[in-house]
Amino acid sequence: MTAIGGPLAPGSTVGILGGGQLGRYLAIAAAKLGYRAHIYAPETDPPAGQVAAAVTQAAFDDEPALAAFADAVDAVTLEFENVPVASVRCLAERVPVRPGATILEIAQDRLAEKRFAAACGAGTAPWVPLEATDDLAGAAALAAAGPTILKTARLGYDGKGQVALPAHGDVAAAWDRLGRVPAILEGRVALARELSVLIARGTDGDWVAVPPVENRHEDGILRTTVAPAAVSASLAEDAVALARALAEASDTVGLLAVEFFVTDNGALLVNEMAPRPHNSGHWTLDAAKPDQFDLAIRAAVGLPLPPVRILCPAEMTNLLGEEAGSWADLAAEPGVCLHLYGKPEARPGRKMGHVTRLKPSAP
Amino acid sequence: MTAIGGPLAPGSTVGILGGGQLGRYLAIAAAKLGYRAHIYAPETDPPAGQVAAAVTQAAFDDEPALAAFADAVDAVTLEFENVPVASVRCLAERVPVRPGATILEIAQDRLAEKRFAAACGAGTAPWVPLEATDDLAGAAALAAAGPTILKTARLGYDGKGQVALPAHGDVAAAWDRLGRVPAILEGRVALARELSVLIARGTDGDWVAVPPVENRHEDGILRTTVAPAAVSASLAEDAVALARALAEASDTVGLLAVEFFVTDNGALLVNEMAPRPHNSGHWTLDAAKPDQFDLAIRAAVGLPLPPVRILCPAEMTNLLGEEAGSWADLAAEPGVCLHLYGKPEARPGRKMGHVTRLKPSAP
Repeated sequence: MTAIGGPLAPGSTVGILGGGQLGRYLAIAAAKLGYRAHIYAPETDPPAGQVAAAVTQAAFDDEPALAAFADAVDAVTLEFENVPVASVRCLAERVPVRPGATILEIAQDRLAEKRFAAACGAGTAPWVPLEATDDLAGAAALAAAGPTILKTARLGYDGKGQVALPAHGDVAAAWDRLGRVPAILEGRVALARELSVLIARGTDGDWVAVPPVENRHEDGILRTTVAPAAVSASLAEDAVALARALAEASDTVGLLAVEFFVTDNGALLVNEMAPRPHNSGHWTLDAAKPDQFDLAIRAAVGLPLPPVRILCPAEMTNLLGEEAGSWADLAAEPGVCLHLYGKPEARPGRKMGHVTRLKPSAP
Repeated sequence: MTAIGGPLAPGSTVGILGGGQLGRYLAIAAAKLGYRAHIYAPETDPPAGQVAAAVTQAAFDDEPALAAFADAVDAVTLEFENVPVASVRCLAERVPVRPGATILEIAQDRLAEKRFAAACGAGTAPWVPLEATDDLAGAAALAAAGPTILKTARLGYDGKGQVALPAHGDVAAAWDRLGRVPAILEGRVALARELSVLIARGTDGDWVAVPPVENRHEDGILRTTVAPAAVSASLAEDAVALARALAEASDTVGLLAVEFFVTDNGALLVNEMAPRPHNSGHWTLDAAKPDQFDLAIRAAVGLPLPPVRILCPAEMTNLLGEEAGSWADLAAEPGVCLHLYGKPEARPGRKMGHVTRLKPSAP
């Protein structure tokens, strides 16, 4: 279908692991570039399936289904980093998976993530592992120093699997609440702001960045993203350089989102990584070219990665649960780009859609 | 599913008549707004089907298939104005069709189109009908006055069904070549430029326009569109006012594309109308918000129509036939947004994709 090492020819099929809103926009981006999208997801009628040429409904650890999927597609990308690494390895024996197992394995485990960040020379909030009873003493010492947050090492997202603790909080009790699974205790830092950066890295090692944006969370869930972030050029460069270092050290091909804390004394700390499109990059759909999904597909199929142009400043706000019920009002607001994900059930806190508010261009 | 007269609720299904690239982007626009798209097209594996939740493969005059389609969808729009008007009337008995039969009937027939434009007070190139042998005398008189072009009244597109004639050309022989079907002979006017305007008109009569763009054709096929057109504000206003008048006089709900000639003495003449997204509006996908497909879906489902913001000047170039083979080079060009339509066979002159080149914003 294509020369060895060259980009996949249009008409090829891009497999996408995961069927939610990120998969939906990945499928659309694939179609715009002339590729067919094939969604692999465990649920019935996934949002991404509504815009894809094919859908496989199967569990992420169903090896025969994975093998058939690998044979049906020409490259694989993902919207969901908690796909079992064994499944990704199984796929990767048959077809390129971008991003691949190395960065997934790191991003799936907060302890591995912190150790990797440290190995790359990136600062993080103070943290201690909590994997065994022996670790409780160290955790108590960190908890004594100020407020902390206990997080499961694996499978947490949108604030799930987390317990916030005051200074001198009872770490053991909190760990009991999380079922004594491997966890990490992080010291809360005095934050000026939270940023994120997207790096897309190609098969040839070339990369492009989406400049830093500022994120505001509520109850552990992203509420708004302001793009671009109002930070100094040097801080923005430092954030991009750190994100690039993480992508290169893990030899990631694909899109990597890196969340940062900026402390109130100006230090830049790595918080989390996600090797996939990121909620904080949704504004690029309406106000930047190429958008994050286009970049993710380009990296997956081996196409070049052109520089990102910001067309205008923008602010993205998630529509959670019943907030999506205001669709008719939002659709009437000038400068508002309304996005709804095709999810039938508006459960509380569920990401049902988002809006991007386009702002005036700088004079 | 929704209050009578109100917009369709997200999760509703938008039926799309036609499965080509325009249907493909209509389906994507529907998905972004939270609707499911259902494509109705006669061909196997239509480009639009690759991004739609459902596909009906049936002929446009297959009444049982049309009835089942009408029952499966909540509103219908179209990418193809040569759907039989009887089929649209059959659908419209069961479900809103936007744009509807009135404007379709006009746009399907160049003679009806010219008469309608005249009734709306719009200038056109000089023309005479050629429907019967008796009309040949009048046609010969027009042909004696200068170069002309003979066009079939119905079913022509991209320069097909047309014969260019020099001054004093043999109209009868040209009409024989077209099979003596009803036709129109148009005088060629000395052109300064060709423009087009998009008007979206809502269920409540509200409307928004995409400002004029300049089109350059080769061999009857659109080659490039420059957006916005470099014309005076008053000419742009006149073009929008005329397009609006045509949409209002036909009570069109939906998107109407109007092509204009600007003569070398500055007169604005209506050339053609198409009640659907238009090739000359593709640049809006990358450089304007809302884009033309978003506007078409909004009008079809009864959502409000916000004003269009141009994010940057742009130039769109079609990729015809084998030109799409340069996809890898185009994908590497900074500021180029590459679009490929998922068509397997690159026949000569076939629209395989397009590129939008983003230009610097005005200082």
